[in-house]
Amino acid sequence: MAIVLGPNRYGKAEVRVVHVDRAAGRDGPDRVRDWNVSTSLAGDLAAVHLSGDNAHALPTDTQKNTVYALAKKLGGIEPEAFGLELAAHYTGSQEAISRARIAIEEYPWAPLGPGGHSFARSGQYTRTTTVIEDRELGRSVVSGVADLIVLNTTGSQFWGFPRDEYTTLADAYDRMLATTVSASWRFRTPDADWGPAFTAAFAALTDAFTQTPSYSLQQTLYGMGSAVLAAVPELCEVQLALPNKHHFVVDLAPFGLANEDEVYYAADRPYGLIEGTVLADDAPDAGIAWS
Amino acid sequence: MAIVLGPNRYGKAEVRVVHVDRAAGRDGPDRVRDWNVSTSLAGDLAAVHLSGDNAHALPTDTQKNTVYALAKKLGGIEPEAFGLELAAHYTGSQEAISRARIAIEEYPWAPLGPGGHSFARSGQYTRTTTVIEDRELGRSVVSGVADLIVLNTTGSQFWGFPRDEYTTLADAYDRMLATTVSASWRFRTPDADWGPAFTAAFAALTDAFTQTPSYSLQQTLYGMGSAVLAAVPELCEVQLALPNKHHFVVDLAPFGLANEDEVYYAADRPYGLIEGTVLADDAPDAGIAWS
Amino acid sequence: MAIVLGPNRYGKAEVRVVHVDRAAGRDGPDRVRDWNVSTSLAGDLAAVHLSGDNAHALPTDTQKNTVYALAKKLGGIEPEAFGLELAAHYTGSQEAISRARIAIEEYPWAPLGPGGHSFARSGQYTRTTTVIEDRELGRSVVSGVADLIVLNTTGSQFWGFPRDEYTTLADAYDRMLATTVSASWRFRTPDADWGPAFTAAFAALTDAFTQTPSYSLQQTLYGMGSAVLAAVPELCEVQLALPNKHHFVVDLAPFGLANEDEVYYAADRPYGLIEGTVLADDAPDAGIAWS
Amino acid sequence: MAIVLGPNRYGKAEVRVVHVDRAAGRDGPDRVRDWNVSTSLAGDLAAVHLSGDNAHALPTDTQKNTVYALAKKLGGIEPEAFGLELAAHYTGSQEAISRARIAIEEYPWAPLGPGGHSFARSGQYTRTTTVIEDRELGRSVVSGVADLIVLNTTGSQFWGFPRDEYTTLADAYDRMLATTVSASWRFRTPDADWGPAFTAAFAALTDAFTQTPSYSLQQTLYGMGSAVLAAVPELCEVQLALPNKHHFVVDLAPFGLANEDEVYYAADRPYGLIEGTVLADDAPDAGIAWS
Repeated sequence: MAIVLGPNRYGKAEVRVVHVDRAAGRDGPDRVRDWNVSTSLAGDLAAVHLSGDNAHALPTDTQKNTVYALAKKLGGIEPEAFGLELAAHYTGSQEAISRARIAIEEYPWAPLGPGGHSFARSGQYTRTTTVIEDRELGRSVVSGVADLIVLNTTGSQFWGFPRDEYTTLADAYDRMLATTVSASWRFRTPDADWGPAFTAAFAALTDAFTQTPSYSLQQTLYGMGSAVLAAVPELCEVQLALPNKHHFVVDLAPFGLANEDEVYYAADRPYGLIEGTVLADDAPDAGIAWS
Repeated sequence: MAIVLGPNRYGKAEVRVVHVDRAAGRDGPDRVRDWNVSTSLAGDLAAVHLSGDNAHALPTDTQKNTVYALAKKLGGIEPEAFGLELAAHYTGSQEAISRARIAIEEYPWAPLGPGGHSFARSGQYTRTTTVIEDRELGRSVVSGVADLIVLNTTGSQFWGFPRDEYTTLADAYDRMLATTVSASWRFRTPDADWGPAFTAAFAALTDAFTQTPSYSLQQTLYGMGSAVLAAVPELCEVQLALPNKHHFVVDLAPFGLANEDEVYYAADRPYGLIEGTVLADDAPDAGIAWS
Repeated sequence: MAIVLGPNRYGKAEVRVVHVDRAAGRDGPDRVRDWNVSTSLAGDLAAVHLSGDNAHALPTDTQKNTVYALAKKLGGIEPEAFGLELAAHYTGSQEAISRARIAIEEYPWAPLGPGGHSFARSGQYTRTTTVIEDRELGRSVVSGVADLIVLNTTGSQFWGFPRDEYTTLADAYDRMLATTVSASWRFRTPDADWGPAFTAAFAALTDAFTQTPSYSLQQTLYGMGSAVLAAVPELCEVQLALPNKHHFVVDLAPFGLANEDEVYYAADRPYGLIEGTVLADDAPDAGIAWS
Repeated sequence: MAIVLGPNRYGKAEVRVVHVDRAAGRDGPDRVRDWNVSTSLAGDLAAVHLSGDNAHALPTDTQKNTVYALAKKLGGIEPEAFGLELAAHYTGSQEAISRARIAIEEYPWAPLGPGGHSFARSGQYTRTTTVIEDRELGRSVVSGVADLIVLNTTGSQFWGFPRDEYTTLADAYDRMLATTVSASWRFRTPDADWGPAFTAAFAALTDAFTQTPSYSLQQTLYGMGSAVLAAVPELCEVQLALPNKHHFVVDLAPFGLANEDEVYYAADRPYGLIEGTVLADDAPDAGIAWS
């Protein structure tokens, strides 16, 4: 048996960059982009691992600098556009680097007050994107949303499930349904109207959550993914991970009280976890998009 | 030297209770109260510590049950009102318990879509309250806000400070100012219009943050505390803890780029931490309110 | 364009189960297994997503119950053995379920004092395992370690790297190197001496970290992976993710002090992130092992 | 009503400094001190808040620099000694600053391998200290331990408690007891043998946890505090906060299984929280020590 090097990549993770666009001048409004950028490079890096020859290892410190420099050069553009430029920079300028992966989390801020210069972090969700450029395999863009916590107080059921020796769960004909949405949608091509695409996908996702009659969180997941694909033709695939954040009706009978779906215990762990993919049947092969 | 028992208290922490008010019926809108309740009892508890006699130790499990039962009985009321009822329950029903402390975090939810039954957790801030009732010393209510992240892109300065052998900081005549607000305001009496008081205090706090020309975060803190007291006469004291979430202008000169307050590095640690109290000069003695 | 369901799975995540083996009796020592178990099932679940027919969806609540029941039946065995039994339970008893994935985190506890009944959570690392059984594709076991923070005060270099327009990093001929180890090793067959394999892999990993002269964290990664494969013949592949937890020498020159690699600033973000795979050249195909 | 400024302080929080003592030379062993230092200054700071006059506000950036500079000058000394020096520096050099508060968390590292230059973060506990110097009121030192998770598999009871209308808890004659220890001990004078005092207090604390027959966590708390005071005469007061990390025996009866205290569910929230103080009856007044 010999030992060999397999797939590898390296980069700088969680570069926190905030860009302020002051183009509107003294009276504003300014525009704020608040990003957490992680970059990863791959290519001809065997010698770095095997012999300590770093001739191909552009430092991660340089990668950090590059994020800041391009934030200046490119201005407060959409994160997908930034990722594409940044990825192209590496594959275009470093011969040893054949693939670059750029992941960005964007934290939205809402205007605060009338002055045009004040903001409050919205906290409602995180916008995400992952751009990959491979010199041979091309480019991919996967965007999405995370940390979005949503709740339906009615309209969810769960019954008709199989029962085995370890099943004690009762049928539910009207339960609370809450989840923290993590959704990622793949673009057919690395060329779209990024801002409107996000807005439309987000709206479709939340509309489907609120309006889908649900016999399971799986069904809700499928409804959410389908709605996103139907709303944004530039997309071909949606992956969702939906934790079932259980809200249990508290048994108040020992205290002589009826609990008519009023008082709930919001549990931390364990939680259900529903993961699934919804696709257009003509979706191009994903290639490296999810790597 | 002998060893003695000093001050003590015990209770159940972080009871996660969600109350849904469905009074509006099928078409809604429902109203959601999402709370994290911590209760603490004190009193004649020496024997519990010293001899293992638990006759005075109402179980923390019972305290958890009581939170749920009262959530049913009281409905989705303001957290201050709930805290007062819950505290009074303990001091009124347990002879050994002379003091109860109820701390509540409320997580706001925003309506999602038109159906009246769907919500998204807002994430912008946490509303807080701490109610204490002592059978001899009376009742106090301290409310506030936490986890509110705000940012001014201009209008903040910091110069004229002393310099010693370890000082390298340059004067700043126009810096970015960001902080995560933790503010607590004390009510003069345990009797107020809780909801409107919160709304007014929150508005005054954020207005002051956005509109105070700032020579230091201390000055901003004083402005915020003063504004809250001026806006809500039922209040007599505000305590604030404001971390200075540093946003440093990235030096792009090594790359031949000018950074005209556009590109910032958002630092995690260390951070400045400014803590201060603002009072009405006729504020009654705080007593146990902050304990 | 039609919309179709793609890969999916569901289960109960983060079931916190602690097993106490009291077989040694009153004088102990007891043995404690502290686990965080996540289970995921896949198979014929299209109807669950598409039509709300839950006949194939064994509840996640049942999966939670099953973890506890099997913990009783199986006792405090190695986590890999537990995962194999649990996975086989699902694929063997639920016709619709063709694949089960069991992920376990084990938190080690150290004996505390002489009594045999007291323990302190060690906190130094988390032991991990992921077992997958697919009715057609067979079984896989990947184990590993996470949350292990290690530090070399000397013996690490980084120089000879390429420089571009954004490079400002200086050569380092003797730097501090710290990382939080996340390593996962794949077994050739689902049949090994699990406990000793973990012990040997852990020792090889840490020995390699401490003893490999390092020209880059990539080289250290390769050394660590190689050492694990060399030490444990039952293994065929190691995947590592090593964040470079930067410790920067603080510039004390402004204060007239020389810092001879004594005083460091431990940075949070950004951090380098080095990811790589080390393989035996005769490693069987990974199949679904990493899914 | 006029508005006035109340108590206030400001400083730099969470300065992450790692000191490597290389005095033992090439063959080591090196000694590592890994600290999280927070400093706070108070004094004549009204103008800073009220008029934007910063003449008394030594920058928090300077405070950060000072931590690093003194780490160099003082070397890898005990955290209490470091805190005393740092506090004295401020009150001794800044006329406007009459009080300084230094809080330090120390993360212990264990040697890794034989080389003398490698370490693994122990993760078992955090050592803490808070030093306050006030030009008029003198100096105080409070040290302690945090994040220490301990568990007794037997020897704990809880019964004989009062029952009210909301009580459903059953008597427990042999329960699992687990807690995360946060303990702080006050020194009689700011002058002690810091390292041995910590070692002795830690040993007394854990011995008492393991050896105290417990009728409640309150009794365990008192036993732990008493043991610390008895073991370390330099101490006069111990404050403890002990969350009761509930481990519930899982009901396996629905599955036809007996659970003889083998299988537990480790709950996250809610948790009991027991807080208390144990004092020497001749303890000097605490003054500002806990502020």
